Amino acid sequence: MKRLIAKTAMTCAVLMLVIGSAGVQAQIAKNVAARSPWGPDDEIGTLNMMNDASRLKVLRQVTGGKVYDLAVDLFVGMPLCCTPFGDPSFQIWMTHTPARDSASELLSYSGDAISMYTHSGTHLDTLNHFGLHGEIWNKVSADDALGVRGWTKSGADKYPPIVARGVLIDVAGSKNVAYLPASYAITVADLQAALRKQGTTLRPGDVVLTRTGSMTHWPDVAKFRLADQPGLSLEAAQWLVEKQKAMLLGADNFGVESFPSKDPKNFVPVHTYLFAERGVSLLEAMWLEELAKDRVYEFLFIASPLKMRGATASPIRPLAISIQR
Amino acid sequence: MKRLIAKTAMTCAVLMLVIGSAGVQAQIAKNVAARSPWGPDDEIGTLNMMNDASRLKVLRQVTGGKVYDLAVDLFVGMPLCCTPFGDPSFQIWMTHTPARDSASELLSYSGDAISMYTHSGTHLDTLNHFGLHGEIWNKVSADDALGVRGWTKSGADKYPPIVARGVLIDVAGSKNVAYLPASYAITVADLQAALRKQGTTLRPGDVVLTRTGSMTHWPDVAKFRLADQPGLSLEAAQWLVEKQKAMLLGADNFGVESFPSKDPKNFVPVHTYLFAERGVSLLEAMWLEELAKDRVYEFLFIASPLKMRGATASPIRPLAISIQR
Amino acid sequence: MKRLIAKTAMTCAVLMLVIGSAGVQAQIAKNVAARSPWGPDDEIGTLNMMNDASRLKVLRQVTGGKVYDLAVDLFVGMPLCCTPFGDPSFQIWMTHTPARDSASELLSYSGDAISMYTHSGTHLDTLNHFGLHGEIWNKVSADDALGVRGWTKSGADKYPPIVARGVLIDVAGSKNVAYLPASYAITVADLQAALRKQGTTLRPGDVVLTRTGSMTHWPDVAKFRLADQPGLSLEAAQWLVEKQKAMLLGADNFGVESFPSKDPKNFVPVHTYLFAERGVSLLEAMWLEELAKDRVYEFLFIASPLKMRGATASPIRPLAISIQR
Amino acid sequence: MKRLIAKTAMTCAVLMLVIGSAGVQAQIAKNVAARSPWGPDDEIGTLNMMNDASRLKVLRQVTGGKVYDLAVDLFVGMPLCCTPFGDPSFQIWMTHTPARDSASELLSYSGDAISMYTHSGTHLDTLNHFGLHGEIWNKVSADDALGVRGWTKSGADKYPPIVARGVLIDVAGSKNVAYLPASYAITVADLQAALRKQGTTLRPGDVVLTRTGSMTHWPDVAKFRLADQPGLSLEAAQWLVEKQKAMLLGADNFGVESFPSKDPKNFVPVHTYLFAERGVSLLEAMWLEELAKDRVYEFLFIASPLKMRGATASPIRPLAISIQR
Repeated sequence: MKRLIAKTAMTCAVLMLVIGSAGVQAQIAKNVAARSPWGPDDEIGTLNMMNDASRLKVLRQVTGGKVYDLAVDLFVGMPLCCTPFGDPSFQIWMTHTPARDSASELLSYSGDAISMYTHSGTHLDTLNHFGLHGEIWNKVSADDALGVRGWTKSGADKYPPIVARGVLIDVAGSKNVAYLPASYAITVADLQAALRKQGTTLRPGDVVLTRTGSMTHWPDVAKFRLADQPGLSLEAAQWLVEKQKAMLLGADNFGVESFPSKDPKNFVPVHTYLFAERGVSLLEAMWLEELAKDRVYEFLFIASPLKMRGATASPIRPLAISIQR
Repeated sequence: MKRLIAKTAMTCAVLMLVIGSAGVQAQIAKNVAARSPWGPDDEIGTLNMMNDASRLKVLRQVTGGKVYDLAVDLFVGMPLCCTPFGDPSFQIWMTHTPARDSASELLSYSGDAISMYTHSGTHLDTLNHFGLHGEIWNKVSADDALGVRGWTKSGADKYPPIVARGVLIDVAGSKNVAYLPASYAITVADLQAALRKQGTTLRPGDVVLTRTGSMTHWPDVAKFRLADQPGLSLEAAQWLVEKQKAMLLGADNFGVESFPSKDPKNFVPVHTYLFAERGVSLLEAMWLEELAKDRVYEFLFIASPLKMRGATASPIRPLAISIQR
Repeated sequence: MKRLIAKTAMTCAVLMLVIGSAGVQAQIAKNVAARSPWGPDDEIGTLNMMNDASRLKVLRQVTGGKVYDLAVDLFVGMPLCCTPFGDPSFQIWMTHTPARDSASELLSYSGDAISMYTHSGTHLDTLNHFGLHGEIWNKVSADDALGVRGWTKSGADKYPPIVARGVLIDVAGSKNVAYLPASYAITVADLQAALRKQGTTLRPGDVVLTRTGSMTHWPDVAKFRLADQPGLSLEAAQWLVEKQKAMLLGADNFGVESFPSKDPKNFVPVHTYLFAERGVSLLEAMWLEELAKDRVYEFLFIASPLKMRGATASPIRPLAISIQR
Repeated sequence: MKRLIAKTAMTCAVLMLVIGSAGVQAQIAKNVAARSPWGPDDEIGTLNMMNDASRLKVLRQVTGGKVYDLAVDLFVGMPLCCTPFGDPSFQIWMTHTPARDSASELLSYSGDAISMYTHSGTHLDTLNHFGLHGEIWNKVSADDALGVRGWTKSGADKYPPIVARGVLIDVAGSKNVAYLPASYAITVADLQAALRKQGTTLRPGDVVLTRTGSMTHWPDVAKFRLADQPGLSLEAAQWLVEKQKAMLLGADNFGVESFPSKDPKNFVPVHTYLFAERGVSLLEAMWLEELAKDRVYEFLFIASPLKMRGATASPIRPLAISIQR
């Protein structure tokens, strides 16, 4: 289909105006992993935009000491994106407990262990999560860098702590709805309208968090589900990263993008475009309710992925602290 | 023995001077869980010292944009405190990988899962990790609050993000050694000498990180081990929390305190004193090497435990950013 | 059973006034854990009926060398009873794989690990799985015998290998249906009719396997589910163990008994009656299709639970070999 | 074997010049995966020797009803072959427990889950566990048959239940020692001497279990370890499968063969020879103590690997019942 559309575009540009979504997607996504502009050793893509100066700048803008907690709880029975794909559920269990009648014993010892899909709860997706035609970001192939325990490239262990300017775009709020309709694909115009209402300006290097209102369903497992979540369209994602130079995208849903995909060959077209073609990582299942309620649209954003070697994601507990507008 | 020593102390105070370590410990530790001064609902102890004003104060003192990463990697084969106690090792495994010959397929999908003892790598110990005579901090008993999946009180899910003034006490550096001797118990005088050399003043509410030099052995599993690690003596811990009003203690070893314990009935006397009697949590296996090398002794400290319900610990990736002295 | 009772009710309404559905159940189930007739140390209940003579007797009756495999596969995505109760799904993952281009390496090493609820696939339920009022079989209380890693009594490690006469009661076949209706509760009359048609006689010490036809849905996760499976009524279970002296009961569904339970205080009344009151263990998710097709109703039954210390169940792969009728 | 070769060397030094230890091994092992004589679809190798007639024959020879249990317990802290290779330890944990004060509640519900390396405790190794130059038994390559969750060929799910004549060769007993010396490599002469003493004759299709006495160390984790266990030499393995036509080999140690391997390029030369070249599976960590004590050298052997899809091994609990000699 790519070739067909390419030809059509060349000989009949007018038609493109009416081809719509699928055609536009083909134009945006090249469906080939890109080389990094940060050199052949780059594994983190746009996170290279961060530096001491950018961090100090936003740290100096802090206006208050209130910390917004942008993460959800992790618990047995919590909503999960990916158990339908065979991934394990979140488990926590005890490995040490005080004896039943422990009043007579000095020490009351408790310990516990966990098991989880790395993409559980609020988390960061790393660039090795999805590639195209066997290659992830920076044209790294599985033959080069995929071992039995994971990738040796672009895993969570390679990620720096994230300290940057964060921006909330409250699309649900802008539309005066509790949550966007199922499968709604957020457009560029939606983002622009929300930013305008908020009086927010995007800047290069921003962490841009989109609010769909999906978290108003949390933790109802029947309602908070990947299958038909509203989220970014490919065009909106492109606008944020190519035009606005966003460093990192996130949302209050499972996959940032709208589901289901319209591309029968790719159930996550925004993921592959961002990871493999643009080097942009993702933040998922973000708790943005307090930020929205308090209308805190610009903030110091801090998140520290756990350095699990090779991991395609890490659970995180990101923070936001309000800054000068 | 407690009663015996108490009597002895009353009738023969002189003897106390030579009774030494075990006697002193009995004086410091009452071996009974305490009620919280922050009320019957308190589950986080001294972390209540943090507030908007304290956070803003330290955020405003930031002097640079360089972020110190205070965590170690998590990987298969890493050093672990507790496999000898039956706790599971760190495991990561793939649940999705690109097909072996995936050049012909559009999507290259990778995913992974983990399993771990919650006290793995750099982590925060919560107050429910150890209690005394069946009660944890604030006199909460197992009968009241211990379910099959964990405690309903004082778990990691109840912990706020930590944003506070942090202080490094480089004891190994102060003594001009790469690392303290095996089982060395750091004294109050050791802490005072190091602080003097550094020109550092402790303030109420500080996160106090002690460097033993143990991380110079990381990740050698034969050398980086709990069994005979140097660490805080009970007296030093007491001085930090009772005299200096430290909010949170941490170290670059597995258990903060010196091992093995001299108390045959309690293999973790500093843990129980801090958790159950003083409401002070712990930070373990902290990576302090860069801070020490750069002589950054005072800093903005940020750590966000994952909100795993009931958990007795959470892996964390804490950050430090230098502040005005 | 509902219909049967309805008919009885119509012709004999008076009796119903004093019995009723709940009343009948109350008569059978005392709802108190019983002491074992095999002594205070007994942990396996009716499996004590097996001895060298009973085993040799059935071994000598073998008539052929064809082995019937009574177990289902274990795989990622398989139907599971208990994920709705928070139990983990079946997981298998690789810990060693040959390198991607391994033709040049001598050794091609593969290894894997699993994680599962012990009640997954074809399995044996042990007597500690359910108790009554805090006591399991033989009046063992949690205070006496429940540690953090499980019970010290009546776990799978205490179970002998099972070598006994087995009998299939093909209730679905007897009724000429592929499978019994959802939630159907098999009656004593159903069992008697099927036995009569088959020409099968039950003997004390038998392993009695009831076929509901549920496995014709396997492995459709939407259809093979605990929630409304047909299975034994309490009366039928009582008849088998009290009147027929069956040693062990099993079925081709998740819980042997009919679901949902009619008792609002007990979602598994047949389990508690059998485990805690009668000392009878259970075999679940048995594959009986080939036995039924070949009309093999009497057989040498062999099953070996894994001796996992304390476990409330063990996956098994039972065998059947035809014997003289 | 070292002594034997030393003697041979002394009396016949010339021969040694052209054979040597590596030379002998090279002659036996071709180091190339073989095609199965049972056809291109074969995944189980020599287990094809079993059929209805072979099973009935041994079933009819049973002389008693005493069942020998050939498996060890599975428990937290048990000896494990492979934690040094990064494989997970055996874990069992509770997912349901009765409430602490459950006397007032009708139902006392316990459940548990496990996690383990498939090669834990007494287990069967399948043919996909080790291959040569990227190919397992029957020249199946990873490109053909290795997915993320395991091999689609020769996994435990493809294995039939094993019902066959079993033979114990008590080498330790024959030498009148409690256990063979560390790393001792059992020779053909050792096997022949033990068989002679026992009066046992091997027959084609036998399951041959060799006793080294290693289980006298069980469960001492310091002593029962893979690193230097005594076991079969390659010559002895060859003699059993090529000359005696054994169907399946097993032993009371972790890897059946002697460790460490003398081949620097192959730490498991007997495994690769048996799996990839001869299609012979292995039984490991077998409990043979009672059989040896009772001098039961010939028996009905029954083992049922769990049908875990793709698995390179399955825990088993094999049984032995004495037969006519």
